[in-house]
Amino acid sequence: MKNIKVIAFDADDTLWVNEPYFLEAEQKFCALLEDYLPHHSVSQELFKTEMQNLSLYGYGVKSFMLCMIETVLRVTNNTANPEILHKTIQYGQELLNKPIELLDDVKEVLEALKGKYRLVVATKGDLLDQERKLSKSGLATYFHHIEIMSDKKEKDYEKLLKHLDCKPEHFLMLGNSLKSDVMPVLEIGGHAVHIPYHTTWAHEQIDHTLEHDNFYQVKALAEILPQLL
Amino acid sequence: MKNIKVIAFDADDTLWVNEPYFLEAEQKFCALLEDYLPHHSVSQELFKTEMQNLSLYGYGVKSFMLCMIETVLRVTNNTANPEILHKTIQYGQELLNKPIELLDDVKEVLEALKGKYRLVVATKGDLLDQERKLSKSGLATYFHHIEIMSDKKEKDYEKLLKHLDCKPEHFLMLGNSLKSDVMPVLEIGGHAVHIPYHTTWAHEQIDHTLEHDNFYQVKALAEILPQLL
Repeated sequence: MKNIKVIAFDADDTLWVNEPYFLEAEQKFCALLEDYLPHHSVSQELFKTEMQNLSLYGYGVKSFMLCMIETVLRVTNNTANPEILHKTIQYGQELLNKPIELLDDVKEVLEALKGKYRLVVATKGDLLDQERKLSKSGLATYFHHIEIMSDKKEKDYEKLLKHLDCKPEHFLMLGNSLKSDVMPVLEIGGHAVHIPYHTTWAHEQIDHTLEHDNFYQVKALAEILPQLL
Repeated sequence: MKNIKVIAFDADDTLWVNEPYFLEAEQKFCALLEDYLPHHSVSQELFKTEMQNLSLYGYGVKSFMLCMIETVLRVTNNTANPEILHKTIQYGQELLNKPIELLDDVKEVLEALKGKYRLVVATKGDLLDQERKLSKSGLATYFHHIEIMSDKKEKDYEKLLKHLDCKPEHFLMLGNSLKSDVMPVLEIGGHAVHIPYHTTWAHEQIDHTLEHDNFYQVKALAEILPQLL
């Protein structure tokens, strides 16, 4: 990895735990509706609602809450006990209030890279929620900039690079999603590192083996250091 | 107004119609609950819910939707006909899908200032929703940058100026809210123009007459041109 000047980190499930919290909320949500449908069917209904609303609502916890509420109304055929809706809102609010649990080696890796590269965060999700998580993480001082993106497609990365005044060949993106953090970045001429996380949201999953000169696969974040120092 | 280099425009109710759409949705929402409470009381309950959740949810349509839903559950004491909740979600989705109606002179003013200043949009709200509105407005090409802010307090403007690499004395903010677009900007040493709009959300209202060397009050957007050209 030569000539890298800017390193962008995905946030959720790259810097800190996220998807397990969503899964935990989803499991509690499915349990609320077990008198109507088995867990896996509620889960499917919720996913269907999320996909239907994605282009309108975008990513993040508030979208997830609105989709859970819509799913309650549909699954119960409008006979839901209001207590189910109260609990649904409560589970969403709990998600917004979760503590930040950093993943392994994050602090050490940022400490080692600090001053040698421009470090940025590039993440999807709710604006306020992601800002709050970065602040709670204690990591804000490592980053030159946080970019909260409405999506992570090629055009979104092009906008980010223009904004950072950085050429694609000087840009390295690190993240847990091949679909969002790796493929669009390679496509526009940047470098990308995939650090898989044990849990990936269905919407981010791709069935694909990747080979590319600018692509690096690691098992843990700290493995990138020998290539960057 | 000398030495201005960057002009930032608020978006909602400065570039395009916004608050009247929210008010229209709120009136329809209050009508849904008229069997339980008079309109103005529902309106008060909704505002109370919004203020309670503001620090958790932030600004924007999805927050408004979640607050309407919570208000339904409370006002109906959990006896709401699910049709009320369906309609509530529908009113929120309609808000997200509203066409963009530009305010008077916006295009002419931007055309006149283009190339002479760096023009940016500085707005609160949902990330995706504000990006979509800017895109639908046809105004995106006038702007060097769009900054969607989780809040508009002094520290948020300081971050914006750092980000734009602009000194406060070279910065001019235009908007309809004295509280969000004018006062914090004056406080950090910038310039600000207040362009009142006929409708202002209660949360943005202040009872205050302002006198300040860097403050300009106009009745219509086009009135700023003689001072800037």
